[in-house]
Amino acid sequence: MTVMVIDGKAANPTGSIAGGKTPAFPITPTYEGDFVLEGHFLLECGRTLLDATLHYAVYGRMNAARDNVVLVGHALSGSALVAAWWPELFGQEGKTGSGLIDLQRDCVICVNLLGSCYGSTGPGSVDPEGDPEASEVYGPSFPLISIRDNVRAQARLLDSLGVERIPLAIGGSIGAMQALEWAILFPERVGRAVIIAVAPLNAMGLALNHLQRRAIQGDPNWMGGNYAPNRQPRAGLALARQIAMLSYKSPQLFEERFGRKPNRNGEDPWALDSNGGGLTGGRFDVEGFLDYQGERFLERFDANAYLAILRTMDTWEPGRGFRSAEEAFRRIKAHLIFVGISSDGLFPPHEVRALAEEVKAAGARAEYREMVTDHGHDAFLAEQMELILLLQLAD
Amino acid sequence: MTVMVIDGKAANPTGSIAGGKTPAFPITPTYEGDFVLEGHFLLECGRTLLDATLHYAVYGRMNAARDNVVLVGHALSGSALVAAWWPELFGQEGKTGSGLIDLQRDCVICVNLLGSCYGSTGPGSVDPEGDPEASEVYGPSFPLISIRDNVRAQARLLDSLGVERIPLAIGGSIGAMQALEWAILFPERVGRAVIIAVAPLNAMGLALNHLQRRAIQGDPNWMGGNYAPNRQPRAGLALARQIAMLSYKSPQLFEERFGRKPNRNGEDPWALDSNGGGLTGGRFDVEGFLDYQGERFLERFDANAYLAILRTMDTWEPGRGFRSAEEAFRRIKAHLIFVGISSDGLFPPHEVRALAEEVKAAGARAEYREMVTDHGHDAFLAEQMELILLLQLAD
Repeated sequence: MTVMVIDGKAANPTGSIAGGKTPAFPITPTYEGDFVLEGHFLLECGRTLLDATLHYAVYGRMNAARDNVVLVGHALSGSALVAAWWPELFGQEGKTGSGLIDLQRDCVICVNLLGSCYGSTGPGSVDPEGDPEASEVYGPSFPLISIRDNVRAQARLLDSLGVERIPLAIGGSIGAMQALEWAILFPERVGRAVIIAVAPLNAMGLALNHLQRRAIQGDPNWMGGNYAPNRQPRAGLALARQIAMLSYKSPQLFEERFGRKPNRNGEDPWALDSNGGGLTGGRFDVEGFLDYQGERFLERFDANAYLAILRTMDTWEPGRGFRSAEEAFRRIKAHLIFVGISSDGLFPPHEVRALAEEVKAAGARAEYREMVTDHGHDAFLAEQMELILLLQLAD
Repeated sequence: MTVMVIDGKAANPTGSIAGGKTPAFPITPTYEGDFVLEGHFLLECGRTLLDATLHYAVYGRMNAARDNVVLVGHALSGSALVAAWWPELFGQEGKTGSGLIDLQRDCVICVNLLGSCYGSTGPGSVDPEGDPEASEVYGPSFPLISIRDNVRAQARLLDSLGVERIPLAIGGSIGAMQALEWAILFPERVGRAVIIAVAPLNAMGLALNHLQRRAIQGDPNWMGGNYAPNRQPRAGLALARQIAMLSYKSPQLFEERFGRKPNRNGEDPWALDSNGGGLTGGRFDVEGFLDYQGERFLERFDANAYLAILRTMDTWEPGRGFRSAEEAFRRIKAHLIFVGISSDGLFPPHEVRALAEEVKAAGARAEYREMVTDHGHDAFLAEQMELILLLQLAD
């Protein structure tokens, strides 16, 4: 596990350091569709969403007892299509037990976050309480959505599917916030929860999110959130993504991958600009990588959705609404496995471990495991086999 | 030295985490003025600067032998006025030997970097080779300036002052790049060099500078560098400063100072926006701090100067122009003291130590010392007494 697994062949600008591996066999959802939260769904912030949509995907089939659902939470820019970003969790084709999930046994459900741009109601959705003539999107009037709001909405979906109890809730980063929140809010309904690379965001994490927010807000195309869909604040959103990448990867990974090498397209960091000046010049390799990551993100994400989920992430504190975090944790009946990532700068492993210990001290069954890797926060996506091996260790 | 020295009373938004301490007694320069590099000064990038100005400050007086000059290098946003940003190095009033510098004995000279906006020729200076009618500033046509260019220019100044040999060259960060470069370029002229918190910028450091550059370039007011002086790309420059602050301070310092506290002005991170939406909301304390730091920076810095010095920093590699770094280091005759900062995320201590070892392996007299502090990169400015004590340790 000390060996980094990086998608070796792929080269910037055509490849991604994050992996993005092609699954060994096609894993397609057995169902992908929408569930409507009929009526006014009351949010923690005090506002309501009318007839909000949850977009979700199902892999495999529910058994007769409907007690084989693995609930997966996705991270900031993810979607309900788990197999697109966590394919190795499904194991190798024909090898039962080689993954964490076995579709012969398990039924995976993943729900797109409220606020996102992958199908659930978000800032880009038409506001049903707006002017019926105008069909206007929420835009900047989209409310603050909490992790708890998402989990309560997901519970409504599971209710409608007749799923009373889930053997496993699992996720990394914001996905892990959801898994832990499930164990707190619905103690009778969760058997195990795997909580990867998360803790309440610390001051540096809040600072990083702040800069990403400022990057988007500073783009004149953002227009206070009132941009037209085809007039995204592109430069701001790309910069936000680049800032985030610094916290998803580790300095060690960057050093090994890029060092001080000039950009692989042949640019010279000592070059002068086309006007003969020297203010910007040629790029180093890491700059080419970041620019490419920023640009690629524009194809798949929306600026207001990004802002919405940043606040979902910022505001998460499991003790909120309880007298203390301890009171919240005392409710837990699930067996919790916390996973820290040794080189994670966004959610440092000592904070994940401290959270596990806090939960344990409150009387819940909790253990802590650590991925030893140079990859940084994203290791739960980039080193999936290592994660599986860690989780398959006997309890 | 494990205790953090933070300016305790000062509160955001009226104070600074960086210290900014008032010196115990007024230290004023004995001279502050300009030196003109007459003629065409050839730069490493191949271009020349005509009649470039070096702005510099002198504290204390030169002795008859002119062998008591301590040359101080400033960091990215610093100025020649050393006592304004490194006051404690001058010691306590009347207490000889209480600082690193004793103005009864030493004569301090600090030269503003070429490219800066504190007096030396930079992008905001009038280009003497431009249209004489227009009196236009360099703007984006300002060339790439290297650390070596600065050091060679500084040597011309010292030549003119009749200073052949300096007992000490000292600086932190970009200031340390200058100190080491002095020892390499002019081995006969430097007695000791103190090189604090620096190494060639690693991939994460290059990435951070890239994001700062992108923040400025993304501001429409930047206009490719052709902005009017009163139309600075304010949002972009402020964001660049905020990004930089994340690398100047440590996660530990942020956590201790800010944690997840709401902004001290009473904002509520759970608040909705004035339009009832929830995309931005109230700020956490660390956000208020960063916004304040960004705003304050606008009062004292210029966007193109910032870009110019980022490239000076990016391109520094001591082995450049030599067959190898080792060949460069073999030239050194000065006694070098490298200082790493234990919590420095920008120039990690292990890289400073590695640089010291590389220099030593090349045959130079070099030692490594480490400030143990939670402050991060800025500790050499924020914890000056600790730095002095570390440097006063017997060799």
